[in-house]
Amino acid sequence: MGQWFEAFFEKRGYEVLISSRRTPLSNKELVQKSDVVIISVPIRVTVEIIKEVGPYIAPEALLMDFTSLKKASVEAMLKYSKSEVMGAHPLFGPNIESLKGQTIILCPARGESWLPWLKEVFKEAYLEITTPEKHDQIMAVIQALTHFFLLGFALILKESPFSMETLMRYATPNFQIISQRIFHLNHQNPEIYASIQFDNPFYHEKILPLCWEVLERLKKIIQDQNYEEFLKIFQELGDFLGNYSSPQKSF
Amino acid sequence: MGQWFEAFFEKRGYEVLISSRRTPLSNKELVQKSDVVIISVPIRVTVEIIKEVGPYIAPEALLMDFTSLKKASVEAMLKYSKSEVMGAHPLFGPNIESLKGQTIILCPARGESWLPWLKEVFKEAYLEITTPEKHDQIMAVIQALTHFFLLGFALILKESPFSMETLMRYATPNFQIISQRIFHLNHQNPEIYASIQFDNPFYHEKILPLCWEVLERLKKIIQDQNYEEFLKIFQELGDFLGNYSSPQKSF
Repeated sequence: MGQWFEAFFEKRGYEVLISSRRTPLSNKELVQKSDVVIISVPIRVTVEIIKEVGPYIAPEALLMDFTSLKKASVEAMLKYSKSEVMGAHPLFGPNIESLKGQTIILCPARGESWLPWLKEVFKEAYLEITTPEKHDQIMAVIQALTHFFLLGFALILKESPFSMETLMRYATPNFQIISQRIFHLNHQNPEIYASIQFDNPFYHEKILPLCWEVLERLKKIIQDQNYEEFLKIFQELGDFLGNYSSPQKSF
Repeated sequence: MGQWFEAFFEKRGYEVLISSRRTPLSNKELVQKSDVVIISVPIRVTVEIIKEVGPYIAPEALLMDFTSLKKASVEAMLKYSKSEVMGAHPLFGPNIESLKGQTIILCPARGESWLPWLKEVFKEAYLEITTPEKHDQIMAVIQALTHFFLLGFALILKESPFSMETLMRYATPNFQIISQRIFHLNHQNPEIYASIQFDNPFYHEKILPLCWEVLERLKKIIQDQNYEEFLKIFQELGDFLGNYSSPQKSF
């Protein structure tokens, strides 16, 4: 993601400095030269790097990070720097061509002077502005729950008595589409997926228990062949989905 | 589906007769006049209708049905008729424009003289030929498991503390795609979904227990924050998915 944004900002005429363990430029030197500092490092070292560079960032500069959970990184940025602080979560991977149609979530945490510039430079994307807490709660559904389902489905397919080749020959549109999302798991970063599953308190306290309660109810209805309750589920879903759905059959 | 195939066959120059509770033509009269009889009725009355019309179908005629599970309907067609018998399962809904790119599963059960004609008339579709038993086993994964996940995900979203409007503003590509499949649930026939969940012994004996075992394992790894085991899952999936996946990042 760091490389993607390097190209993105250079294309727009900004000078981009990179520091890592492999660059002659140190992290400290880099932040001292920069108006905007973006932390894009493995999740497990994010807070550590913020702690290292935070004190050297000018109060009028902007400190921003790109991790998938915002509470811990924003707290660290506030604690270890005196600069303006913006948590950011781009909801896309480095395979995209442009920001068009993409979403970036912003969590302004200290200062507002950089927000107009961010809105301008990211104007092709949808920007959602929220708090780190709200961000992490919503992502407990959007990312953590979705990944739980995709990982679960993938593991079941792996253990199923049929090869993927056989299944794909008999695939319905629903199965094809979900399989495509599962195939992408192979190219994801397990560390990011682990952090999304492990480090979100709202997911552990609310969403995963809710998920389990709902799946247990559904499983019981099926095992008991309880037709009345099954129809009731469809009724409930109909009321809920009525506003969102398009009249297309799926199998 | 009956109406869709009525238009399909008429367009190809065949005379199509329809009988139902609302037609002057009775079921018995219809099958006596027909070279090919297709049963496309609510699942709960399929066997009953086969029992009613089977004895009046000529031995050289073809009797075919379109239900989602093939074992019970094929057994009934064999039992109550002397005609050629073909179980069929079109893996699409009546919203499609043509058979191009669609799959139809055929389970030849008695006689082979109609198969060349079926292959010709359905030549735009992918035809998969298998036994009723194998069909139902594969569909325990393709349809029953997929529906279990979609229904479960939909019910959790319904109970989640966030409105669908909020979630869609923060949606990743994965979440968007799965939500689209969920929105389609609203237009499905609960009776067909119930039959797919309830009436497939292989789903109850093998796939649903496997599903539960895998989800419990995954849930425990997450609740225990067992990073080693989580990496092992990714490793296992990598080995399994390696052959199928395209190098696209998904979030």
